[in-house]
Amino acid sequence: MAAVGAKTKEAEYHHGDCSIRLSNPNIATMKEDVLYHFSLSTSTHDFPAMFGDVKFVCVGGSASRMKDFTSYVAQELGLERPGVDYPNICAGTDRFAMYKVGPVLSVSHGMGIPSIAIMLHELIKLLYYARCSNVTIIRIGTSGGIGLEPGSVVITQQAVDAYFKPEFEQVVLGKRVVRSTHLDDQLAQELMQCSKELDEFPTVMGNTMCTSDFYEGQGRLDGAFCSYTEEDKQEYLRAAHAVGIRNIEMESSVFAAMCTASGLRAAVVCVTLLNRLDGDQVNSPHDVYVEYQKRPQRLVAYFIKKCLRKM
Amino acid sequence: MAAVGAKTKEAEYHHGDCSIRLSNPNIATMKEDVLYHFSLSTSTHDFPAMFGDVKFVCVGGSASRMKDFTSYVAQELGLERPGVDYPNICAGTDRFAMYKVGPVLSVSHGMGIPSIAIMLHELIKLLYYARCSNVTIIRIGTSGGIGLEPGSVVITQQAVDAYFKPEFEQVVLGKRVVRSTHLDDQLAQELMQCSKELDEFPTVMGNTMCTSDFYEGQGRLDGAFCSYTEEDKQEYLRAAHAVGIRNIEMESSVFAAMCTASGLRAAVVCVTLLNRLDGDQVNSPHDVYVEYQKRPQRLVAYFIKKCLRKM
Repeated sequence: MAAVGAKTKEAEYHHGDCSIRLSNPNIATMKEDVLYHFSLSTSTHDFPAMFGDVKFVCVGGSASRMKDFTSYVAQELGLERPGVDYPNICAGTDRFAMYKVGPVLSVSHGMGIPSIAIMLHELIKLLYYARCSNVTIIRIGTSGGIGLEPGSVVITQQAVDAYFKPEFEQVVLGKRVVRSTHLDDQLAQELMQCSKELDEFPTVMGNTMCTSDFYEGQGRLDGAFCSYTEEDKQEYLRAAHAVGIRNIEMESSVFAAMCTASGLRAAVVCVTLLNRLDGDQVNSPHDVYVEYQKRPQRLVAYFIKKCLRKM
Repeated sequence: MAAVGAKTKEAEYHHGDCSIRLSNPNIATMKEDVLYHFSLSTSTHDFPAMFGDVKFVCVGGSASRMKDFTSYVAQELGLERPGVDYPNICAGTDRFAMYKVGPVLSVSHGMGIPSIAIMLHELIKLLYYARCSNVTIIRIGTSGGIGLEPGSVVITQQAVDAYFKPEFEQVVLGKRVVRSTHLDDQLAQELMQCSKELDEFPTVMGNTMCTSDFYEGQGRLDGAFCSYTEEDKQEYLRAAHAVGIRNIEMESSVFAAMCTASGLRAAVVCVTLLNRLDGDQVNSPHDVYVEYQKRPQRLVAYFIKKCLRKM
């Protein structure tokens, strides 16, 4: 894994024509691997048969939104079959939900870095065991915007932390390890081009701040705890805007770090539900949010359709 | 909030006979408060009527486990009504699930510090708006044990971070803030006494390590990334054991910090699914885990029953 400031350079392991890189030598020696939070195991499920044809993985926080996305993509790709529902592949657990239609896998990841990290560890191993190649992974999420009209879509240029640094920090065996949050520039450009062709909603490229809290961690004034003023908040958000940050969410940094290091082409596409310079509450009418949340789905389904025409 | 090393002392706000303390002066001036991740709002829901009688809040990662707990508590307290199901109070969203029976509220919190922090911000405000008093909150969860027989239950004495420090660190407006993770000692003792009376499974008091990752963050050798050896892992886990850590999970530190600072009596009761000194995979038969996961529920339901007899 490309490591910034980490002491060790991890070795990379791949097999055959699989383009997924595992940064863990132990996996090759395991007789069975239980992907506990997916309720799937290499000894009870045939991963190459189930997932070998996956070329696109779309992930998002909410399980129901990922199910909706699956139906929508099926329709867009002409793969829907009337009366046929999409079963949850992870039905044995309620930690995450997973759906598949053709080459598109949709997986929920819950909220926050630790939750999506658990999902990504198991997803990357799943794609490796399934011997997948040339996989594109896109997070389609919701976020708070900075200085953008609500409903705008942000394609992430760089994922940064709450100090505005393009780093993901974690603690491994009691030691601090910092990793790069690089995303695929070419993929971001392709998505931007798709948005221009679609021409349905405002879309910008910008940096995305990834925080570990929704309230104090994002400078909100309406949590159970708040020890700063509106002025302090505005100063922080304006400083973020000045360094190119256009939206705030809670998963992009670890998503970028883990996916890029595993040989996945990765992008983050989030709609902004509100302009944080104007307020903190997410209180517009429900149907407005329902429409906003479909925007990243529309953009990414269009992109997938376009890619498949070229394959 | 009791702050270790934080620059500011937050003011506390409560109203009338409500014993919930909010550390945010802005709440008193809000006309409406949308608890977005619960899909509840002070302008559309009557919080005192819905939640005013809550005396016990039980939280856990999985929504289905919290629903099971609700049915079980109803049965134990003699409050079940044949054929009556418990509706999900947060049915408008799939972020969290919430159930209520008598004075017991059960809420799911997903996985990891950011996810439970979102839930707790909104839960603490909910209890405040409902004018609740003398509320006890208990996290009933799953964990990895250190040096314990699988299935053992750990009542947390002190929640510590991955450096073994009894602290919860977060970033507020780009600045590091460190908070105390103190839990209610008396409550932990009462729960330990209940376990002795029940005499159904091994229970210990011990420190609980709260990490931000399930794989590398807990020294597992079976994630998509691993740059250390079995010996490194054993050294880390044995050092943790030497300072009194008996289990590892992903929510206790922020749970302790936020609940204690809000005037809630707080405890953490987790079952250990495996002994991490012996392995990393969670791969015992499903029915074994189902039984293990009921142990914290049995203990906490017994405790609630005992408290209600005294009221």
